[in-house]
Amino acid sequence: MDIRSLLNQYSERVDSYLKTCISQESIDPILQASMLYSLFNGGKRVRPTLVHMVNSMLGGDMRHADSAAAAIECIHSYSLVHDDLPAMDDDDLRRGKPTCHIAYDEATAILAGDALQSLAFELIAVDPYLNAEAKVALVKELSIASGYQGMAVGQSFDLRNVGKPLNLVQLEAMHQHKTGALLQCSVIMGAITSGKASQAQLSALTDYAKAIGLAFQVQDDILDIEGDSAVIGKPQGSDLAQNKPTYPALLGLESAKLKLQQLHDDATQALAPFGSAASELNALADFIVHRDH
Amino acid sequence: MDIRSLLNQYSERVDSYLKTCISQESIDPILQASMLYSLFNGGKRVRPTLVHMVNSMLGGDMRHADSAAAAIECIHSYSLVHDDLPAMDDDDLRRGKPTCHIAYDEATAILAGDALQSLAFELIAVDPYLNAEAKVALVKELSIASGYQGMAVGQSFDLRNVGKPLNLVQLEAMHQHKTGALLQCSVIMGAITSGKASQAQLSALTDYAKAIGLAFQVQDDILDIEGDSAVIGKPQGSDLAQNKPTYPALLGLESAKLKLQQLHDDATQALAPFGSAASELNALADFIVHRDH
Repeated sequence: MDIRSLLNQYSERVDSYLKTCISQESIDPILQASMLYSLFNGGKRVRPTLVHMVNSMLGGDMRHADSAAAAIECIHSYSLVHDDLPAMDDDDLRRGKPTCHIAYDEATAILAGDALQSLAFELIAVDPYLNAEAKVALVKELSIASGYQGMAVGQSFDLRNVGKPLNLVQLEAMHQHKTGALLQCSVIMGAITSGKASQAQLSALTDYAKAIGLAFQVQDDILDIEGDSAVIGKPQGSDLAQNKPTYPALLGLESAKLKLQQLHDDATQALAPFGSAASELNALADFIVHRDH
Repeated sequence: MDIRSLLNQYSERVDSYLKTCISQESIDPILQASMLYSLFNGGKRVRPTLVHMVNSMLGGDMRHADSAAAAIECIHSYSLVHDDLPAMDDDDLRRGKPTCHIAYDEATAILAGDALQSLAFELIAVDPYLNAEAKVALVKELSIASGYQGMAVGQSFDLRNVGKPLNLVQLEAMHQHKTGALLQCSVIMGAITSGKASQAQLSALTDYAKAIGLAFQVQDDILDIEGDSAVIGKPQGSDLAQNKPTYPALLGLESAKLKLQQLHDDATQALAPFGSAASELNALADFIVHRDH
């Protein structure tokens, strides 16, 4: 299976859905433009792809997963817009393009992020395919994963600890909230939209999402040391130079690589009960572990 | 009817609900503290009161309105936190207390606002009293009223036009989005939670909300000219001095007062079909028109 063409296929599906989501009518069209600019910033669409892959693996109707897939990308996108703000990570570029507050202005970026969050919940609420029970379950998962017990507190914890040493438990808790919560939410949402997941399947999918979420971070940290600067898009060793807590810094490079392997094994094992139906999810895990940027 | 004690009674109800909404457990308790700080900043709770009053007028169970009332206050509260940020209105004080980014820091204020928005949708989704259809209807109304076709675009339009002259149509469109959308949402949510509103009643309640929303703004503008600085909490004439577009500036003071009276009449007339059941909503309209701050 060619994972890149598979990812492209899923990306195109969520992209074409997202393009129709924002009505053009407005008293301030710049706000919509800034939302679209942020949504279409060259992201890999990992979260919506997870929603669709899980829905599909469980035998769901893909159309039932479209709004949830688009919604989680809106949440991810808003979080990037706000994280890039001067008061947060103060980044001028993301994937080589000016960040939202540089392309527009800070006030517009704050409001674009806010409106992308509202849009996420709107998309689920107005979905013509899902029943009310499924919509409520999706809103519940997404709001909890985004909020003060999920993504938002992960970012808050990260900023609160800049320059402070973290131990392994704290580092893992940070990643678990900051990025893990939304990844787990993606697979749960995919399962909800399939209408067919058992409790055991939900639990296995959550284990899978936890493993690939952490694996993504560990590989990120390893790439900072071993990656090609031109490919990873930042100077080699920049985490080390900024004294950021990383897995190699805490464990040593070799043990970090072993941990990555272990997480990959965990992901594969979590998918075992699904057999060959899980081939796409397995390919995605391989991709995360072996990517070079 | 003593409107102040009535407002206090409704405020206490939403306050005690809001106090239990945010779990204490966290990897960064400062985020929760900043959310609570922002929620309990001395606001008058007009929006949750509208939710409860409408639910009650239509013969609903008040418990069915609690999550919607709390949710709309979370949205209002997040919007104030973000509006106060340096990149937006840059206000250090709100109702005499340091704004969230002054009491904490900018990054925390951005995240507190973000997490308050997520919390709004979470509260509705986990409500133990409402059925799934009502929850979906509430999420739909609230997300649309908050987002790029509602409150967020109103604020965006306002900031985009600082220092520019607005005509009456533009001024009204700005208020209609910036504050009107959430006020209308409040009455619609109250009606949804009652489970008993007809289309005609929804339409009458929307007219009422539009009228009191604009009346609130017109009275605000008049108070800026005629109010006692010590009572209104800002220097008399500060809108004029900042060249802000206001009703008196566009219409003249006397015509602005006539407009206020007209809006009050519109509100009363919209409530006529409800008879004496609407006494609380009528008292609220009187309060808005006659308030001195």
